[in-house]
Amino acid sequence: MHDIRKIDLREGILDENDHIAEHVKEHMESHKVLVVNEMGAPGVGKTTTLKNIFKHLSLKPYVIEGDIESDLDTKDLNSLGVETHQINTYGACHLDAPMIEHMTHHMSFDEPGVLFIENIGNLVCPAEFSIGEHVKMLISTVTEGSDKPYKYPLAFEKADIIILNKVDLIPYLDFDEDFFMKGVRALNKDVPVFKVSGKTGEGFAEVAAWLEEKASNL
Amino acid sequence: MHDIRKIDLREGILDENDHIAEHVKEHMESHKVLVVNEMGAPGVGKTTTLKNIFKHLSLKPYVIEGDIESDLDTKDLNSLGVETHQINTYGACHLDAPMIEHMTHHMSFDEPGVLFIENIGNLVCPAEFSIGEHVKMLISTVTEGSDKPYKYPLAFEKADIIILNKVDLIPYLDFDEDFFMKGVRALNKDVPVFKVSGKTGEGFAEVAAWLEEKASNL
Repeated sequence: MHDIRKIDLREGILDENDHIAEHVKEHMESHKVLVVNEMGAPGVGKTTTLKNIFKHLSLKPYVIEGDIESDLDTKDLNSLGVETHQINTYGACHLDAPMIEHMTHHMSFDEPGVLFIENIGNLVCPAEFSIGEHVKMLISTVTEGSDKPYKYPLAFEKADIIILNKVDLIPYLDFDEDFFMKGVRALNKDVPVFKVSGKTGEGFAEVAAWLEEKASNL
Repeated sequence: MHDIRKIDLREGILDENDHIAEHVKEHMESHKVLVVNEMGAPGVGKTTTLKNIFKHLSLKPYVIEGDIESDLDTKDLNSLGVETHQINTYGACHLDAPMIEHMTHHMSFDEPGVLFIENIGNLVCPAEFSIGEHVKMLISTVTEGSDKPYKYPLAFEKADIIILNKVDLIPYLDFDEDFFMKGVRALNKDVPVFKVSGKTGEGFAEVAAWLEEKASNL
Protein backbone atom coordinates (compact mmCIF):
# COMPACT_ATOMS: atom_id res chain seq x y z
CA MET A 1 0.00 0.00 0.00
CA HIS A 2 2.98 2.31 0.60
CA ASP A 3 4.84 1.41 -2.57
CA ILE A 4 4.07 3.61 -5.56
CA ARG A 5 5.12 0.85 -7.99
CA LYS A 6 2.45 -1.43 -6.55
CA ILE A 7 -0.21 1.24 -7.03
CA ASP A 8 0.84 1.84 -10.64
CA LEU A 9 0.79 -1.87 -11.42
CA ARG A 10 -2.68 -2.22 -9.91
CA GLU A 11 -4.09 0.77 -11.75
CA GLY A 12 -2.60 -0.48 -15.00
CA ILE A 13 -4.33 -3.84 -14.57
CA LEU A 14 -7.67 -2.15 -13.80
CA ASP A 15 -7.36 0.17 -16.83
CA GLU A 16 -6.63 -2.72 -19.17
CA ASN A 17 -9.50 -4.71 -17.68
CA ASP A 18 -11.98 -1.85 -18.13
CA HIS A 19 -10.89 -1.34 -21.71
CA ILE A 20 -11.61 -5.00 -22.53
CA ALA A 21 -14.88 -4.83 -20.57
CA GLU A 22 -16.06 -2.06 -22.89
CA HIS A 23 -15.32 -4.31 -25.88
CA VAL A 24 -17.34 -7.15 -24.34
CA LYS A 25 -20.27 -4.83 -23.72
CA GLU A 26 -20.24 -3.51 -27.30
CA HIS A 27 -19.98 -7.04 -28.69
CA MET A 28 -23.01 -8.14 -26.64
CA GLU A 29 -25.02 -5.04 -27.61
CA SER A 30 -24.45 -5.90 -31.27
CA HIS A 31 -26.32 -9.16 -30.51
CA LYS A 32 -28.99 -7.40 -28.40
CA VAL A 33 -27.86 -9.35 -25.34
CA LEU A 34 -28.12 -7.79 -21.86
CA VAL A 35 -25.15 -8.74 -19.66
CA VAL A 36 -25.75 -9.39 -15.94
CA ASN A 37 -22.82 -9.77 -13.52
CA GLU A 38 -24.22 -11.87 -10.67
CA MET A 39 -22.28 -11.46 -7.44
CA GLY A 40 -22.60 -12.67 -3.86
CA ALA A 41 -20.86 -14.59 -1.08
CA PRO A 42 -20.58 -18.41 -1.16
CA GLY A 43 -23.90 -20.15 -0.61
CA VAL A 44 -26.24 -17.17 -1.07
CA GLY A 45 -28.07 -19.04 -3.84
CA LYS A 46 -26.61 -17.60 -7.03
CA THR A 47 -27.39 -20.65 -9.20
CA THR A 48 -30.77 -21.18 -7.54
CA THR A 49 -31.61 -17.54 -8.31
CA LEU A 50 -30.83 -18.09 -11.99
CA LYS A 51 -32.99 -21.20 -12.12
CA ASN A 52 -35.90 -19.29 -10.59
CA ILE A 53 -35.48 -16.30 -12.93
CA PHE A 54 -35.50 -18.65 -15.96
CA LYS A 55 -39.00 -19.83 -15.00
CA HIS A 56 -40.34 -16.32 -15.66
CA LEU A 57 -37.99 -14.81 -18.24
CA SER A 58 -39.43 -14.41 -21.75
CA LEU A 59 -35.95 -13.79 -23.25
CA LYS A 60 -33.38 -16.46 -24.10
CA PRO A 61 -30.88 -16.99 -21.25
CA TYR A 62 -27.18 -17.66 -21.75
CA VAL A 63 -24.92 -18.46 -18.78
CA ILE A 64 -21.23 -18.29 -17.97
CA GLU A 65 -20.49 -20.02 -14.64
CA GLY A 66 -17.46 -18.84 -12.71
CA ASP A 67 -16.04 -21.24 -10.13
CA ILE A 68 -12.65 -21.71 -8.58
CA GLU A 69 -12.96 -25.43 -9.16
CA SER A 70 -15.79 -27.87 -9.97
CA ASP A 71 -18.51 -27.70 -12.60
CA LEU A 72 -21.46 -28.75 -10.43
CA ASP A 73 -23.55 -25.68 -11.32
CA THR A 74 -22.79 -25.86 -15.05
CA LYS A 75 -23.94 -29.50 -15.18
CA ASP A 76 -27.04 -28.50 -13.24
CA LEU A 77 -27.97 -25.69 -15.65
CA ASN A 78 -27.07 -27.60 -18.84
CA SER A 79 -29.36 -30.40 -17.68
CA LEU A 80 -32.19 -27.84 -17.76
CA GLY A 81 -31.43 -27.05 -21.39
CA VAL A 82 -29.81 -23.66 -20.72
CA GLU A 83 -26.64 -22.96 -22.73
CA THR A 84 -24.03 -22.79 -19.95
CA HIS A 85 -20.26 -22.45 -20.21
CA GLN A 86 -17.75 -22.99 -17.41
CA ILE A 87 -14.82 -20.81 -16.39
CA ASN A 88 -12.61 -22.21 -13.62
CA THR A 89 -10.20 -19.70 -12.10
CA TYR A 90 -8.14 -22.23 -10.07
CA GLY A 91 -7.56 -19.92 -7.14
CA ALA A 92 -8.36 -16.46 -8.51
CA CYS A 93 -11.02 -14.74 -6.41
CA HIS A 94 -13.01 -13.05 -9.19
CA LEU A 95 -13.70 -13.14 -12.93
CA ASP A 96 -12.12 -10.48 -15.13
CA ALA A 97 -12.94 -9.00 -18.52
CA PRO A 98 -10.30 -10.94 -20.54
CA MET A 99 -11.79 -14.25 -19.30
CA ILE A 100 -15.25 -13.16 -20.44
CA GLU A 101 -14.04 -11.79 -23.76
CA HIS A 102 -12.36 -15.10 -24.52
CA MET A 103 -15.47 -17.12 -23.63
CA THR A 104 -17.99 -14.93 -25.48
CA HIS A 105 -16.01 -15.36 -28.68
CA HIS A 106 -16.77 -19.08 -28.46
CA MET A 107 -20.52 -18.56 -28.01
CA SER A 108 -23.05 -18.04 -30.80
CA PHE A 109 -25.74 -15.67 -29.39
CA ASP A 110 -28.13 -16.70 -32.15
CA GLU A 111 -30.98 -14.63 -30.72
CA PRO A 112 -31.42 -11.63 -28.41
CA GLY A 113 -31.47 -12.48 -24.72
CA VAL A 114 -29.72 -12.13 -21.38
CA LEU A 115 -26.20 -13.35 -20.58
CA PHE A 116 -25.94 -14.15 -16.87
CA ILE A 117 -22.36 -14.35 -15.63
CA GLU A 118 -22.21 -16.02 -12.22
CA ASN A 119 -19.11 -14.63 -10.56
CA ILE A 120 -16.92 -16.38 -7.94
CA GLY A 121 -18.64 -16.63 -4.54
CA ASN A 122 -17.01 -13.66 -2.85
CA LEU A 123 -18.41 -10.40 -1.50
CA VAL A 124 -15.12 -8.51 -1.88
CA CYS A 125 -13.08 -8.95 -5.07
CA PRO A 126 -15.71 -9.25 -7.85
CA ALA A 127 -17.10 -5.78 -7.04
CA GLU A 128 -13.82 -4.21 -8.18
CA PHE A 129 -13.74 -5.62 -11.71
CA SER A 130 -16.07 -4.79 -14.59
CA ILE A 131 -16.57 -7.73 -16.92
CA GLY A 132 -18.67 -5.99 -19.57
CA GLU A 133 -21.94 -6.02 -17.65
CA HIS A 134 -24.91 -3.69 -18.06
CA VAL A 135 -26.25 -4.76 -14.66
CA LYS A 136 -24.48 -5.70 -11.43
CA MET A 137 -26.88 -8.02 -9.59
CA LEU A 138 -25.97 -8.54 -5.93
CA ILE A 139 -27.42 -11.51 -4.03
CA SER A 140 -27.57 -11.09 -0.25
CA THR A 141 -29.41 -13.30 2.24
CA VAL A 142 -31.26 -12.93 5.51
CA THR A 143 -29.15 -15.79 6.96
CA GLU A 144 -25.94 -13.75 6.57
CA GLY A 145 -27.21 -11.12 8.99
CA SER A 146 -28.29 -7.53 8.62
CA ASP A 147 -24.84 -5.90 8.96
CA LYS A 148 -23.48 -6.90 5.54
CA PRO A 149 -23.87 -3.47 3.82
CA TYR A 150 -21.77 -1.90 6.60
CA LYS A 151 -19.01 -4.50 6.32
CA TYR A 152 -18.83 -4.97 2.54
CA PRO A 153 -19.83 -1.52 1.28
CA LEU A 154 -18.35 -1.62 -2.24
CA ALA A 155 -20.57 -4.46 -3.46
CA PHE A 156 -23.71 -2.74 -2.12
CA GLU A 157 -22.65 0.66 -3.43
CA LYS A 158 -22.08 -0.61 -6.97
CA ALA A 159 -25.15 -2.87 -7.24
CA ASP A 160 -27.80 -1.99 -9.86
CA ILE A 161 -30.21 -4.51 -8.32
CA ILE A 162 -30.12 -6.26 -4.94
CA ILE A 163 -31.83 -9.59 -4.35
CA LEU A 164 -32.45 -10.47 -0.71
CA ASN A 165 -32.77 -14.26 -0.73
CA LYS A 166 -33.96 -16.93 1.73
CA VAL A 167 -36.76 -14.78 3.18
CA ASP A 168 -38.65 -18.01 4.00
CA LEU A 169 -36.19 -18.42 6.91
CA ILE A 170 -36.96 -15.03 8.52
CA PRO A 171 -39.21 -16.56 11.23
CA TYR A 172 -36.23 -18.55 12.56
CA LEU A 173 -33.67 -15.71 12.50
CA ASP A 174 -32.98 -12.36 14.18
CA PHE A 175 -32.69 -10.52 10.88
CA ASP A 176 -33.13 -6.74 11.32
CA GLU A 177 -34.54 -5.56 8.00
CA ASP A 178 -34.63 -1.87 8.98
CA PHE A 179 -30.93 -1.93 9.89
CA PHE A 180 -30.11 -3.74 6.64
CA MET A 181 -32.09 -1.26 4.50
CA LYS A 182 -30.59 1.72 6.35
CA GLY A 183 -27.14 0.41 5.42
CA VAL A 184 -28.16 -0.16 1.80
CA ARG A 185 -29.71 3.31 1.43
CA ALA A 186 -26.66 5.06 2.92
CA LEU A 187 -24.59 3.56 0.08
CA ASN A 188 -27.04 3.34 -2.79
CA LYS A 189 -30.04 5.64 -2.62
CA ASP A 190 -32.19 4.26 -5.45
CA VAL A 191 -31.20 0.62 -5.99
CA PRO A 192 -34.24 -1.71 -6.19
CA VAL A 193 -34.26 -4.44 -3.53
CA PHE A 194 -36.30 -7.59 -4.30
CA LYS A 195 -37.15 -10.01 -1.48
CA VAL A 196 -37.19 -13.59 -2.76
CA SER A 197 -37.08 -17.20 -1.66
CA GLY A 198 -35.25 -19.79 -3.74
CA LYS A 199 -37.21 -22.40 -1.83
CA THR A 200 -40.77 -21.12 -2.40
CA GLY A 201 -40.05 -19.21 -5.63
CA GLU A 202 -41.66 -15.99 -4.41
CA GLY A 203 -40.36 -12.71 -5.80
CA PHE A 204 -38.61 -13.94 -8.94
CA ALA A 205 -41.35 -12.96 -11.42
CA GLU A 206 -40.71 -9.34 -10.43
CA VAL A 207 -36.94 -9.75 -10.91
CA ALA A 208 -37.46 -11.24 -14.39
CA ALA A 209 -39.77 -8.35 -15.34
CA TRP A 210 -37.16 -5.83 -14.15
CA LEU A 211 -34.50 -7.51 -16.34
CA GLU A 212 -36.81 -7.60 -19.37
CA GLU A 213 -37.39 -3.87 -18.99
CA LYS A 214 -33.60 -3.30 -18.92
CA ALA A 215 -33.12 -5.50 -21.99
CA SER A 216 -35.79 -3.60 -23.90
CA ASN A 217 -33.68 -0.44 -23.58
CA LEU A 218 -30.56 -1.91 -25.22
CA MET B 1 -1.18 -16.31 -15.54
CA HIS B 2 0.91 -16.59 -18.72
CA ASP B 3 3.45 -13.98 -17.73
CA ILE B 4 6.48 -15.28 -15.86
CA ARG B 5 7.07 -11.87 -14.25
CA LYS B 6 3.64 -11.97 -12.65
CA ILE B 7 4.33 -15.39 -11.20
CA ASP B 8 7.66 -14.23 -9.79
CA LEU B 9 6.09 -11.17 -8.21
CA ARG B 10 3.36 -13.25 -6.63
CA GLU B 11 5.76 -15.88 -5.29
CA GLY B 12 8.01 -13.17 -3.90
CA ILE B 13 5.08 -11.63 -2.00
CA LEU B 14 4.10 -15.03 -0.59
CA ASP B 15 7.68 -15.81 0.49
CA GLU B 16 8.04 -12.50 2.29
CA ASN B 17 4.66 -12.98 3.95
CA ASP B 18 5.56 -16.48 5.19
CA HIS B 19 8.86 -15.24 6.56
CA ILE B 20 7.09 -12.56 8.63
CA ALA B 21 4.41 -15.09 9.65
CA GLU B 22 7.15 -17.23 11.20
CA HIS B 23 8.32 -14.22 13.23
CA VAL B 24 4.78 -13.62 14.49
CA LYS B 25 4.43 -17.24 15.53
CA GLU B 26 7.74 -17.23 17.42
CA HIS B 27 6.83 -13.95 19.13
CA MET B 28 3.50 -15.39 20.28
CA GLU B 29 5.09 -18.64 21.46
CA SER B 30 7.47 -16.61 23.64
CA HIS B 31 4.30 -15.34 25.41
CA LYS B 32 2.67 -18.81 25.45
CA VAL B 33 -0.12 -17.52 23.26
CA LEU B 34 -1.83 -19.86 20.77
CA VAL B 35 -2.70 -18.09 17.51
CA VAL B 36 -5.97 -18.98 15.75
CA ASN B 37 -6.70 -17.72 12.21
CA GLU B 38 -10.51 -17.69 12.00
CA MET B 39 -11.76 -17.83 8.42
CA GLY B 40 -15.13 -18.09 6.69
CA ALA B 41 -17.48 -16.42 4.23
CA PRO B 42 -19.44 -13.26 5.15
CA GLY B 43 -22.19 -13.92 7.66
CA VAL B 44 -21.17 -17.42 8.78
CA GLY B 45 -21.01 -16.24 12.39
CA LYS B 46 -17.32 -15.62 12.99
CA THR B 47 -17.82 -13.08 15.79
CA THR B 48 -20.72 -15.05 17.29
CA THR B 49 -18.47 -18.11 17.34
CA LEU B 50 -15.82 -16.21 19.31
CA LYS B 51 -18.39 -14.98 21.83
CA ASN B 52 -19.61 -18.53 22.38
CA ILE B 53 -16.09 -19.94 22.73
CA PHE B 54 -15.26 -17.28 25.35
CA LYS B 55 -18.08 -18.60 27.57
CA HIS B 56 -16.18 -21.89 27.94
CA LEU B 57 -12.50 -21.00 27.48
CA SER B 58 -10.37 -21.11 30.64
CA LEU B 59 -7.50 -19.22 28.95
CA LYS B 60 -7.31 -15.46 28.42
CA PRO B 61 -8.62 -14.45 24.97
CA TYR B 62 -7.09 -11.71 22.82
CA VAL B 63 -8.73 -10.65 19.54
CA ILE B 64 -7.66 -8.94 16.34
CA GLU B 65 -10.69 -8.12 14.19
CA GLY B 66 -10.14 -7.88 10.46
CA ASP B 67 -12.73 -5.96 8.46
CA ILE B 68 -12.69 -4.13 5.16
CA GLU B 69 -14.51 -1.25 6.82
CA SER B 70 -16.48 -0.71 10.05
CA ASP B 71 -15.66 -1.64 13.63
CA LEU B 72 -19.03 -3.10 14.64
CA ASP B 73 -17.55 -6.39 15.84
CA THR B 74 -14.66 -4.78 17.72
CA LYS B 75 -17.08 -2.57 19.66
CA ASP B 76 -19.22 -5.62 20.36
CA LEU B 77 -16.30 -7.65 21.77
CA ASN B 78 -14.71 -4.78 23.69
CA SER B 79 -18.08 -4.21 25.38
CA LEU B 80 -17.75 -7.78 26.75
CA GLY B 81 -14.39 -6.91 28.31
CA VAL B 82 -12.31 -8.82 25.74
CA GLU B 83 -9.15 -7.01 24.58
CA THR B 84 -9.95 -6.46 20.88
CA HIS B 85 -8.00 -4.53 18.27
CA GLN B 86 -9.25 -3.49 14.83
CA ILE B 87 -7.51 -3.83 11.47
CA ASN B 88 -9.35 -2.28 8.51
CA THR B 89 -8.02 -3.31 5.11
CA TYR B 90 -10.06 -0.78 3.05
CA GLY B 91 -10.61 -3.07 0.11
CA ALA B 92 -8.01 -5.82 0.58
CA CYS B 93 -9.65 -9.24 0.65
CA HIS B 94 -7.54 -10.89 3.37
CA LEU B 95 -5.22 -10.13 6.30
CA ASP B 96 -1.49 -10.69 5.82
CA ALA B 97 1.41 -11.34 8.15
CA PRO B 98 2.87 -7.78 8.10
CA MET B 99 -0.48 -6.39 9.31
CA ILE B 100 -0.52 -8.87 12.20
CA GLU B 101 3.14 -8.33 13.09
CA HIS B 102 2.51 -4.58 13.31
CA MET B 103 -0.56 -5.02 15.50
CA THR B 104 0.93 -7.61 17.88
CA HIS B 105 3.81 -5.25 18.64
CA HIS B 106 1.22 -2.86 20.08
CA MET B 107 -0.35 -5.49 22.34
CA SER B 108 0.88 -6.52 25.77
CA PHE B 109 0.10 -10.27 26.11
CA ASP B 110 0.50 -10.04 29.88
CA GLU B 111 -0.56 -13.66 30.41
CA PRO B 112 -0.70 -16.89 28.40
CA GLY B 113 -3.83 -17.33 26.32
CA VAL B 114 -5.28 -17.54 22.84
CA LEU B 115 -5.08 -14.83 20.16
CA PHE B 116 -8.07 -15.11 17.84
CA ILE B 117 -7.58 -13.31 14.54
CA GLU B 118 -10.89 -12.89 12.73
CA ASN B 119 -10.01 -12.70 9.05
CA ILE B 120 -11.95 -10.86 6.31
CA GLY B 121 -15.22 -12.60 5.43
CA ASN B 122 -14.10 -14.47 2.34
CA LEU B 123 -13.78 -18.16 1.56
CA VAL B 124 -11.09 -17.67 -1.09
CA CYS B 125 -8.21 -15.28 -0.39
CA PRO B 126 -7.50 -15.74 3.36
CA ALA B 127 -6.69 -19.44 2.86
CA GLU B 128 -3.63 -18.49 0.80
CA PHE B 129 -1.87 -16.34 3.39
CA SER B 130 -0.32 -17.49 6.67
CA ILE B 131 -0.52 -14.83 9.36
CA GLY B 132 1.49 -16.60 12.06
CA GLU B 133 -1.26 -18.98 13.17
CA HIS B 134 -0.91 -22.34 14.88
CA VAL B 135 -4.50 -23.22 13.97
CA LYS B 136 -6.59 -22.41 10.90
CA MET B 137 -10.22 -22.48 12.09
CA LEU B 138 -12.75 -22.60 9.26
CA ILE B 139 -16.36 -21.65 9.92
CA SER B 140 -18.89 -23.13 7.49
CA THR B 141 -22.68 -23.17 7.83
CA VAL B 142 -25.58 -25.42 6.95
CA THR B 143 -27.34 -22.43 5.32
CA GLU B 144 -24.58 -22.09 2.70
CA GLY B 145 -25.36 -25.54 1.33
CA SER B 146 -23.51 -28.84 1.30
CA ASP B 147 -21.41 -28.25 -1.85
CA LYS B 148 -18.97 -25.74 -0.34
CA PRO B 149 -15.97 -28.13 0.07
CA TYR B 150 -16.20 -28.95 -3.65
CA LYS B 151 -16.31 -25.30 -4.71
CA TYR B 152 -13.80 -23.76 -2.28
CA PRO B 153 -11.38 -26.64 -1.73
CA LEU B 154 -8.31 -24.73 -0.51
CA ALA B 155 -9.96 -23.44 2.68
CA PHE B 156 -11.26 -26.90 3.55
CA GLU B 157 -7.96 -28.58 2.68
CA LYS B 158 -5.90 -26.29 4.89
CA ALA B 159 -8.25 -26.17 7.90
CA ASP B 160 -7.02 -27.59 11.22
CA ILE B 161 -10.53 -27.45 12.67
CA ILE B 162 -13.89 -26.98 10.93
CA ILE B 163 -16.90 -25.53 12.72
CA LEU B 164 -20.25 -26.23 11.08
CA ASN B 165 -22.51 -23.47 12.40
CA LYS B 166 -26.27 -22.77 12.42
CA VAL B 167 -27.26 -26.42 12.88
CA ASP B 168 -30.44 -25.20 14.62
CA LEU B 169 -31.73 -24.32 11.12
CA ILE B 170 -31.29 -27.85 9.68
CA PRO B 171 -35.02 -28.69 9.99
CA TYR B 172 -35.85 -25.84 7.58
CA LEU B 173 -33.16 -26.61 4.98
CA ASP B 174 -32.18 -29.29 2.44
CA PHE B 175 -28.65 -29.62 3.85
CA ASP B 176 -27.04 -32.93 2.80
CA GLU B 177 -24.57 -33.69 5.60
CA ASP B 178 -23.24 -36.88 3.98
CA PHE B 179 -22.37 -35.01 0.77
CA PHE B 180 -20.74 -32.22 2.79
CA MET B 181 -18.64 -34.65 4.85
CA LYS B 182 -17.65 -36.66 1.77
CA GLY B 183 -16.29 -33.42 0.28
CA VAL B 184 -14.45 -32.53 3.48
CA ARG B 185 -12.87 -35.99 3.85
CA ALA B 186 -11.68 -36.05 0.22
CA LEU B 187 -9.64 -32.92 0.98
CA ASN B 188 -8.74 -33.31 4.64
CA LYS B 189 -8.80 -36.82 6.04
CA ASP B 190 -8.46 -36.16 9.76
CA VAL B 191 -9.72 -32.62 10.43
CA PRO B 192 -12.15 -32.47 13.38
CA VAL B 193 -15.59 -31.11 12.49
CA PHE B 194 -17.67 -29.62 15.31
CA LYS B 195 -21.38 -29.01 14.81
CA VAL B 196 -22.52 -25.89 16.65
CA SER B 197 -25.29 -23.34 16.90
CA GLY B 198 -24.50 -19.73 17.66
CA LYS B 199 -28.15 -19.34 18.58
CA THR B 200 -28.51 -22.16 21.13
CA GLY B 201 -24.83 -22.32 22.16
CA GLU B 202 -24.56 -26.08 21.59
CA GLY B 203 -21.18 -27.51 20.63
CA PHE B 204 -18.90 -24.67 21.75
CA ALA B 205 -17.72 -26.27 25.01
CA GLU B 206 -16.11 -29.00 22.90
CA VAL B 207 -14.44 -26.42 20.63
CA ALA B 208 -13.01 -24.57 23.65
CA ALA B 209 -11.68 -27.85 25.08
CA TRP B 210 -10.00 -28.67 21.75
CA LEU B 211 -8.28 -25.25 21.72
CA GLU B 212 -7.14 -25.62 25.34
CA GLU B 213 -5.54 -28.95 24.45
CA LYS B 214 -3.70 -27.27 21.53
CA ALA B 215 -2.54 -24.43 23.77
CA SER B 216 -1.21 -26.86 26.38
CA ASN B 217 1.23 -28.22 23.78
CA LEU B 218 2.85 -24.85 23.01
